[in-house]
Amino acid sequence: MTYFRRTFKKISKVISKNSIKLIKSLEYRKYRLVHQLFLAEGNKMVTDLLRSRIKIRTIIGTPEFLQGLNEQEIRGIELTEAMGDEIRNASLLRNPQDALAICHIPEDSGTLPDPSRNLVICLDNIQDPGNLGTIVRIADWFGVMHVVCSPGTADIFNPKAVQATMGSIGRVKVSYFPLAEWLGNAAAEGNFIAGTFLGGENLYSTELSPAGILVMGNEGKGISEEVVPFIGKRIHIPSFSADNNHAESLNVAMATAVVCSEFRRRYQ
Amino acid sequence: MTYFRRTFKKISKVISKNSIKLIKSLEYRKYRLVHQLFLAEGNKMVTDLLRSRIKIRTIIGTPEFLQGLNEQEIRGIELTEAMGDEIRNASLLRNPQDALAICHIPEDSGTLPDPSRNLVICLDNIQDPGNLGTIVRIADWFGVMHVVCSPGTADIFNPKAVQATMGSIGRVKVSYFPLAEWLGNAAAEGNFIAGTFLGGENLYSTELSPAGILVMGNEGKGISEEVVPFIGKRIHIPSFSADNNHAESLNVAMATAVVCSEFRRRYQ
Repeated sequence: MTYFRRTFKKISKVISKNSIKLIKSLEYRKYRLVHQLFLAEGNKMVTDLLRSRIKIRTIIGTPEFLQGLNEQEIRGIELTEAMGDEIRNASLLRNPQDALAICHIPEDSGTLPDPSRNLVICLDNIQDPGNLGTIVRIADWFGVMHVVCSPGTADIFNPKAVQATMGSIGRVKVSYFPLAEWLGNAAAEGNFIAGTFLGGENLYSTELSPAGILVMGNEGKGISEEVVPFIGKRIHIPSFSADNNHAESLNVAMATAVVCSEFRRRYQ
Repeated sequence: MTYFRRTFKKISKVISKNSIKLIKSLEYRKYRLVHQLFLAEGNKMVTDLLRSRIKIRTIIGTPEFLQGLNEQEIRGIELTEAMGDEIRNASLLRNPQDALAICHIPEDSGTLPDPSRNLVICLDNIQDPGNLGTIVRIADWFGVMHVVCSPGTADIFNPKAVQATMGSIGRVKVSYFPLAEWLGNAAAEGNFIAGTFLGGENLYSTELSPAGILVMGNEGKGISEEVVPFIGKRIHIPSFSADNNHAESLNVAMATAVVCSEFRRRYQ
């Protein structure tokens, strides 16, 4: 690896056994909590996170990848050079790319947004980490800067959720908080609170709001009983299928995209 | 298994080795083509397909599942009773449910829709079977009855694509055809042909059409060069992110959902 000679970067040339053990442990919530670290993989993911609010502890990458990084952006970050085989050995993905990053879990995950100022997405027991990550990506696209999750929602630092955000985890805050309490306060303060229901009003014709809270429910059970009382606006996405046996529902991430799109269209 | 006693159903009580071999082979396109069969798994999937245009050859399920089926709907279908462990052994899923079905590939996959009468989704080299299946599910929701794919698009009968349709594969036709040829004809006949482009017109304000073709491009490369000339309407989904480093793009399935929603909203 003599072709890597930018000596101003301090670089280890071996992934230690401890690092590999640490990485593998980050698949599990228990160890993410112990270490307050999470794993993010992929070239674009790592370069995106370097420009985000997420603090990276360690980047493991091929010499070519590390060489391409911006000197300013990697200050204070531990770098480890690794070849494809070593990265494959450390990775949690089936098809690893050229880089992975061990990142600090941000300390602000307890903060709550002000739903009177912008649209906030609120997730009520979303189970699938892929759905959660995809929703965070959608939030990013539609300018929703904060997602508030029930404690029963999947962990956003689960590697599958992180990967599904495609880097949006560095731009969107995700907090966990008991929803009844938060929504109770938000409702008392007169905030607009919407949720999707089978019997709700037509998304395309009902009145919406430029700011407020959009509650999305569990994949199978929908919005939970303790949360329902706070939903002031019940929304339904109409289906246009001619077949009575049509798709029972859109996936929760699809539904989030469609509803966010309509909110933003109205007030663009 | 003596508690299963509805003797008017002919039921095998063992999954044969040949059946298991056949099921496993259906993970591969080559064998799907040889056998003209595909695999669909899950309780709701199987009951949905029973009420669809798809012809089922064999249902393998737990006694309870088979017992719950409608006598009219299962006429002529081979039934095999199996316990959880046997199903797990035959299944291609990590978490199999109580039933799986071996189905005939429909013979109409070469037919083409009339884009002057309804909205048609056209997929230009979508690579990921999960994205493909999800798009078919979205098509079903938004009343798009036909999806036309380039020959380079993933196979809709890939088990991952089938599962992602959540049963919509039984309601939406999916054809494969060289796109330049089909779109060339459709354009010559004056059909409305739209596609998503980074530099396109704002989805929310540009003129759309109640019928026509919506072309969605490859996950990484977008719409291919040979197809671009036929796109009369270039659409862009605006991002509302305040951050300049915002999500580069919506996933292709999300984008399809958002665009279909806007088409249908206009002409509902």
